[in-house]
Amino acid sequence: MHPPRTAVVLLSGGLDSATAAAIARAEGFALAALTVRYGQRHQEEINAARRVASSLNAFAHQIIDVDLAAFGGSALTDRSVAVPKDRSLGENGAAGDVPATYVPARNTVLCALALAWAEALSARDLYLGVNVLDASGYPDCRPEFVSAFETLANVATRAGISGERIHVHAPLITWTKAEIIRRGVALGLDYSLTLSCYDPAPKGGACGRCDACTLRKKGFAEAGVADPTRYG
Amino acid sequence: MHPPRTAVVLLSGGLDSATAAAIARAEGFALAALTVRYGQRHQEEINAARRVASSLNAFAHQIIDVDLAAFGGSALTDRSVAVPKDRSLGENGAAGDVPATYVPARNTVLCALALAWAEALSARDLYLGVNVLDASGYPDCRPEFVSAFETLANVATRAGISGERIHVHAPLITWTKAEIIRRGVALGLDYSLTLSCYDPAPKGGACGRCDACTLRKKGFAEAGVADPTRYG
Repeated sequence: MHPPRTAVVLLSGGLDSATAAAIARAEGFALAALTVRYGQRHQEEINAARRVASSLNAFAHQIIDVDLAAFGGSALTDRSVAVPKDRSLGENGAAGDVPATYVPARNTVLCALALAWAEALSARDLYLGVNVLDASGYPDCRPEFVSAFETLANVATRAGISGERIHVHAPLITWTKAEIIRRGVALGLDYSLTLSCYDPAPKGGACGRCDACTLRKKGFAEAGVADPTRYG
Repeated sequence: MHPPRTAVVLLSGGLDSATAAAIARAEGFALAALTVRYGQRHQEEINAARRVASSLNAFAHQIIDVDLAAFGGSALTDRSVAVPKDRSLGENGAAGDVPATYVPARNTVLCALALAWAEALSARDLYLGVNVLDASGYPDCRPEFVSAFETLANVATRAGISGERIHVHAPLITWTKAEIIRRGVALGLDYSLTLSCYDPAPKGGACGRCDACTLRKKGFAEAGVADPTRYG
């Protein structure tokens, strides 16, 4: 049904999760890619996730809908909250406190879905592209989150009874954007397939001005890699 | 927008979650009821959840879809796996190992969604109807699961940064079915509104033969309470 060593990879269509997926593949896993449509403002990142899954030869790609927008509380899912633009970001990328683009408990929901699929596939490895530096205001992008979720995963599933261990990999968690990009380029990842923007232009290109675009631009500049992003 | 002390209650439409909701209400919480349609075989339990939410004056009731059936691996979501019937259940209700009706990581997904809504509502209390005795083969119905999820919740959300505590209540977790029923009856809960059956008859009544029906019948008998369930 599926290759013996499978990893479930959460693929958003962005730069970080694409890099995490490329690392999983380089570490010998066959990829089951999971993209969650949770009420984001646009479909362009779903298209980007499809391109990335295909380029990394994922043996399956599930796109699951869960309407976190119904709960409200985020600029990413709620049209009444504006996506911040043209902010001065600090050394670590964040502008202090929890940003308006934070989606309540999003990574908990995404990881729970990845865990469900992993258990159904008898896979014991999850890969996440979470990163603490460029989102230091997001509570669910911290190493403590990854560690707490791994502990939960080993209690919440058959693994908790059988003694098999589930591993939650977050290889990029402490890397700078430039380090992430250099690693992806070294693995042959084509970043022109990815989209990081929170608020893409009508034609699907990146806006170039939201926090995600600002960090991505800075990352390519610092990595000394030509930015392949399509803007506008 | 909402009353000051809010609890998010996961409401399946079954007996246990209805009792947990009645307890939350008795403990002074205004109820935000959450029902997740995760690919179960039938809609009758959604209707039951609506009746229970209404009878307990929930100020909001969200019904969220998430297609766990896409992942497969359970008799509850996969039509190619039969729901077990007429089994001899042990003292604790389970027939050993993890039952075919186990849905991979279901309670992790359900709790993650409840947490997302709680955070959007600034609520700090979740109520679950999980019970270890009648499902001792389900890894995610054990006290260890509830504890690990509470730990995660306090890392994964703003609460993890602000120092406010999120509490995950599972009041029934070690009770027998008879104890659950006696408590609900004492709180005035009308169990005829609920549906526990894994495989209801075409007219929406309970089958009377699946594990859930068997345990429920036994519970009413042991509690010395007339069984209000509609069969067939």
